[in-house]
Amino acid sequence: MSDGLRINLARLRAELEALGQIGRNPATGGLDRVSFSDVDMEGRHYVRGLMEKSGLETSMDGAANLSGVWNTGKGPVIMLGSHLDTVPDGGMLDGALGVLAALEAVRTMQEAGLAPACPIEVIATSEEEGRFGGMFGAQALAGMVTREWLETARDDGGTMLVDAMRAQGLDPQKALGAKRPEGSIAGFLELHIEQGPVLEKTGKPAGIVTGISGVFNWTIRLIGEANHSGTTPMDMRRDAFRGLAEFAGEIPALIAECGSDVSRLTIGKVSLEPNFPHTVPGRAEFTLVARDMDEAVMHALAGGARRRIAEAAARHGLYHEIEETSWLPPAPCHSSIIMALQAAAQSLGIDAPLMPSGAGHDTQVLSAIAPAGLIFVPSVGGVSHAPGEFTDWKDIETGSNLLLHAAMRLAGV
Amino acid sequence: MSDGLRINLARLRAELEALGQIGRNPATGGLDRVSFSDVDMEGRHYVRGLMEKSGLETSMDGAANLSGVWNTGKGPVIMLGSHLDTVPDGGMLDGALGVLAALEAVRTMQEAGLAPACPIEVIATSEEEGRFGGMFGAQALAGMVTREWLETARDDGGTMLVDAMRAQGLDPQKALGAKRPEGSIAGFLELHIEQGPVLEKTGKPAGIVTGISGVFNWTIRLIGEANHSGTTPMDMRRDAFRGLAEFAGEIPALIAECGSDVSRLTIGKVSLEPNFPHTVPGRAEFTLVARDMDEAVMHALAGGARRRIAEAAARHGLYHEIEETSWLPPAPCHSSIIMALQAAAQSLGIDAPLMPSGAGHDTQVLSAIAPAGLIFVPSVGGVSHAPGEFTDWKDIETGSNLLLHAAMRLAGV
Repeated sequence: MSDGLRINLARLRAELEALGQIGRNPATGGLDRVSFSDVDMEGRHYVRGLMEKSGLETSMDGAANLSGVWNTGKGPVIMLGSHLDTVPDGGMLDGALGVLAALEAVRTMQEAGLAPACPIEVIATSEEEGRFGGMFGAQALAGMVTREWLETARDDGGTMLVDAMRAQGLDPQKALGAKRPEGSIAGFLELHIEQGPVLEKTGKPAGIVTGISGVFNWTIRLIGEANHSGTTPMDMRRDAFRGLAEFAGEIPALIAECGSDVSRLTIGKVSLEPNFPHTVPGRAEFTLVARDMDEAVMHALAGGARRRIAEAAARHGLYHEIEETSWLPPAPCHSSIIMALQAAAQSLGIDAPLMPSGAGHDTQVLSAIAPAGLIFVPSVGGVSHAPGEFTDWKDIETGSNLLLHAAMRLAGV
Repeated sequence: MSDGLRINLARLRAELEALGQIGRNPATGGLDRVSFSDVDMEGRHYVRGLMEKSGLETSMDGAANLSGVWNTGKGPVIMLGSHLDTVPDGGMLDGALGVLAALEAVRTMQEAGLAPACPIEVIATSEEEGRFGGMFGAQALAGMVTREWLETARDDGGTMLVDAMRAQGLDPQKALGAKRPEGSIAGFLELHIEQGPVLEKTGKPAGIVTGISGVFNWTIRLIGEANHSGTTPMDMRRDAFRGLAEFAGEIPALIAECGSDVSRLTIGKVSLEPNFPHTVPGRAEFTLVARDMDEAVMHALAGGARRRIAEAAARHGLYHEIEETSWLPPAPCHSSIIMALQAAAQSLGIDAPLMPSGAGHDTQVLSAIAPAGLIFVPSVGGVSHAPGEFTDWKDIETGSNLLLHAAMRLAGV
């Protein structure tokens, strides 16, 4: 009875820990498996070996995406996976969990003698973390990589992407041929750590992601007049910081008026001029990063923020400028995948709430070419991109079983 | 009839403009007559010549204070003056106006054949602007300079005060002997530009200063948690900037509750960590500079600020630290001098409101050893410490006549 099927946590854990030794920095305990490094390729080689051991048909495409196909059934594939590269000094679960849990799900089905109605493909994407901008492998699968971008991308140290790939024996031009044919992926499922505090704080073992939030990023400048703080009375100031502080104080009201319960607005960067204790700030430049799952709500938040910034500026005699540095619409997960995940969670008795993802993942790119879905497991302390990244093994087991059973539903077993 | 006596503006203006050529930077039009520079000494030499031309008995004390005494009458002196040094690229009125207007007042009395009951001394103090910390000359007169300070003071470029003095042929040790005997100054009067916007904006030709505001200077640290702005919901953040913004937004209410109409609170310097657009700020460090004319009000403001900072911190789950880097009590002007200035203003028909000074002046130091008072004239645009520093000549005339008539009252003519 396949409802009782469970992944083998001991095996998955052993492989995660073995992969977690590849690129490990002994000084910090973190992983330095940045994309197209020797250890990144070594990690891919290790996972390819595991895939082959399970009889999967393996290949590496022109973007260094590693693929292992269980050639069972017919038609478009059900694709399961995530990425294998890490940020510098990152953790052992971000990405790797989604790849190895996908492989474990396939093995569990194989061992139970199941016969899925379609091929199941385990994918380990390349360059998700951003050495060269991020989500390179997924974008190559989706046909989003252009020749011009490919030939000009560089990392922070000035190394060209094409040189980093050639150094690993890869032909970068082949990345342009990695696009999957339309309709060839019937569904994509990714298991990933949450990288936030919600599941841990609410005591949930897993979450079903409704989509990747849309985000807009503004740089805002308020321009008043720098004055002597001793000789300038409060009512004769054009204090740029007071304008900023008033706007910042209204963010909760702005969300209450225009936002939703998943709106997230952040002022993360502030610089004042002249930034001297005894001088009224003449100029304040700050960032506003705003997210929501609904683009109409994003527009409402933007409109409300523009109005409140203008009002705060007017109250303090300030000029204001708003520069929109990016606007990315939300990438909703596909309702059919969300429903498969909910049905699987219910059958397994897993309390997995619906939640947005505020961080980007391969799912957001692959949702452009396939019905896609994402499962989160809790991040202890909300930590990720750091050596201290951790998820309770029990939660990893729960999330992996959810991946398994959702995949079974999508694959018709 | 001495009520009709008026200073000679043309003469005063010609001398101010001549002094304004000494140390002038032709590129900016500003003055670089920083203390103990060659041009600072040249300026003193020029003014000494003017004093001698009017029969004053001149001397330079061990701190390079230039003194010109009109030896008329008996007993303690009435002292009038200000400083001659400038900030780098400063203006022609800050300091110089108070010295040359004092000389002009003496000459006006001389020419009218008045016989004051006591000697009148014109003083041009040294190093008021702060190359070596500021108010050096006035502090030497007040006996506040210590040997240890004298021997360790340096400017920003590392030059020792003692070396700068020796380079001008001065013996720095003699500064310790510049203290005036107790009771030897019956009154001190200074005319100075406001360096703020109040007189210009309220359309007044002069102001009678009630005293130099007290000031406290805090560095405040709010410590929360840096988190990913996308994955951390609004209600799970410990956002240090939100704590700062909330406190900053409450400053008007804090002043309404604990302050006065001359309270001035400024957040001039802010630094966030990590100060990255996509990260919730984990740490905010900022300054609070607060001024009032009443030390009890300063204590009330400090108490209210402490409570509001603690409350804002608690609302956002932040630790907070408050470091008091300085606390200077107010230096009130002497009521007898304020009354003499008010009586003189009334007799001249000058609408000169009472006002605090938020900036420091020689008056604040000399008020420790003599009844002292300060007259302000308007600063166009509130500008000072810059080449564009300017006061209408008509207002200079009004302020100088106010100085003259107050001095006449103090000197019993």
